Amino acid sequence: MPRYKLTLEYDGAPYMGWQWQDHGPSVQGAVEAAVARLDPDGSDVYGSGRTDSGVHALGQVAHVDLVKTLRADKVRDALNHHLGDHPISVLDAAIMPDDWHARFDARERRYLFRIIDRRPRLALDRGRVWRVPVRLDAEPMHDAAQVLIGQHDFTTFRDTQCQAKSPVKTLDMARVARVGAEIHCEFSARSFLHKQVRSMVGSLVEVGWGKWDADDMRAALEARDRTLCGPVSPPDGLYLISVAYPD
Amino acid sequence: MPRYKLTLEYDGAPYMGWQWQDHGPSVQGAVEAAVARLDPDGSDVYGSGRTDSGVHALGQVAHVDLVKTLRADKVRDALNHHLGDHPISVLDAAIMPDDWHARFDARERRYLFRIIDRRPRLALDRGRVWRVPVRLDAEPMHDAAQVLIGQHDFTTFRDTQCQAKSPVKTLDMARVARVGAEIHCEFSARSFLHKQVRSMVGSLVEVGWGKWDADDMRAALEARDRTLCGPVSPPDGLYLISVAYPD
Repeated sequence: MPRYKLTLEYDGAPYMGWQWQDHGPSVQGAVEAAVARLDPDGSDVYGSGRTDSGVHALGQVAHVDLVKTLRADKVRDALNHHLGDHPISVLDAAIMPDDWHARFDARERRYLFRIIDRRPRLALDRGRVWRVPVRLDAEPMHDAAQVLIGQHDFTTFRDTQCQAKSPVKTLDMARVARVGAEIHCEFSARSFLHKQVRSMVGSLVEVGWGKWDADDMRAALEARDRTLCGPVSPPDGLYLISVAYPD
Repeated sequence: MPRYKLTLEYDGAPYMGWQWQDHGPSVQGAVEAAVARLDPDGSDVYGSGRTDSGVHALGQVAHVDLVKTLRADKVRDALNHHLGDHPISVLDAAIMPDDWHARFDARERRYLFRIIDRRPRLALDRGRVWRVPVRLDAEPMHDAAQVLIGQHDFTTFRDTQCQAKSPVKTLDMARVARVGAEIHCEFSARSFLHKQVRSMVGSLVEVGWGKWDADDMRAALEARDRTLCGPVSPPDGLYLISVAYPD
């Protein structure tokens, strides 16, 4: 049974999230249904991690074992065909060693959060960008984001439902910059806590309109107190952009 | 009756185009319905020009006369409220002189056409970008686009249903560049013929994958023969980005 690495792009809006759910559609469920049409004896599909309801991916990674041995590009094309109307695309497929694992071998996850600071509602980017109706200043947001870099107890920026054993994570990169009419926030880490990116972004927006400064961000982090987190952002602007593995 | 200039963003996918149609929804019809809810005695809405079915706008301009005298920002906010679920947004409203006209006073229209050259289908940008499944080279496309600049008889690049009296137009700017994973084609002119941008883009794609070169583009233009146009692109990637007026 060859193991295939799949790189996936998806619109998270119609799904309850990556993970299979019994109360609504999931990205994993849609990809598994496509696998079943290609190879009824194919395995479950394992993702690098969950994305929440409404969160998008430009480069989610998953793996699947097929009984059939097929060329990787044929697997990519066939799965795209069987995905039908689902807003999910297999960007790439590659044959991997049998013990390669999309989740356990991942070394870095990278997320992008897109914000647009304008009063008029969105027409083209509905569900794709978080609209904040006041002007934001990207520079102090970037400075405040640097406070979060390194190994910290991220209890303040962690959903109360988070199931991770420890709230300690290492944030490797945090970057905030204006890109045209938008503000882009990028983060990378080996792994993130549940709603960590949305919690950090919500707090950075408080900095962007001048309610908080970098010292407030540091105080919130050091307090390890969920009630001190800024308003958590919606999932709309969040994209899992890539997952990195050792060569 | 004060006259308001409206700057509009819309997703063209659900509409038969800008212009009011009796056989399906139009952007104009949706905006007029919102105007009627704000001011039952408001006028029709006049656009700077038509956009075809499926064509998007980041900065379409229109005007409307209201009986009520309202602050421009209140008109913007009220129309956005009354537009409800329509993927249309009034980005800006401004009070203009009574004889100002969105169509007749326009001096320049600017269009963007987004292309993505990749084999896997689209998940997030469905209907927003034209996917071409072969690699394109932006540089020769840009060079060939320069052939089109200036005053020409654009019969080759004009839909056979085009109702303009003359096929002679002046193209002021044509630019093709790679932007990340996409190729962006931008054009500006005082006005365009029906499907002119989509016809030029379809022909430039022939250059991008090496079937045509700049000389073929020149020969097609000079032949003034519609049958020599490359395959006309779909509307998916086309955006009316701005309309310029004298100060």
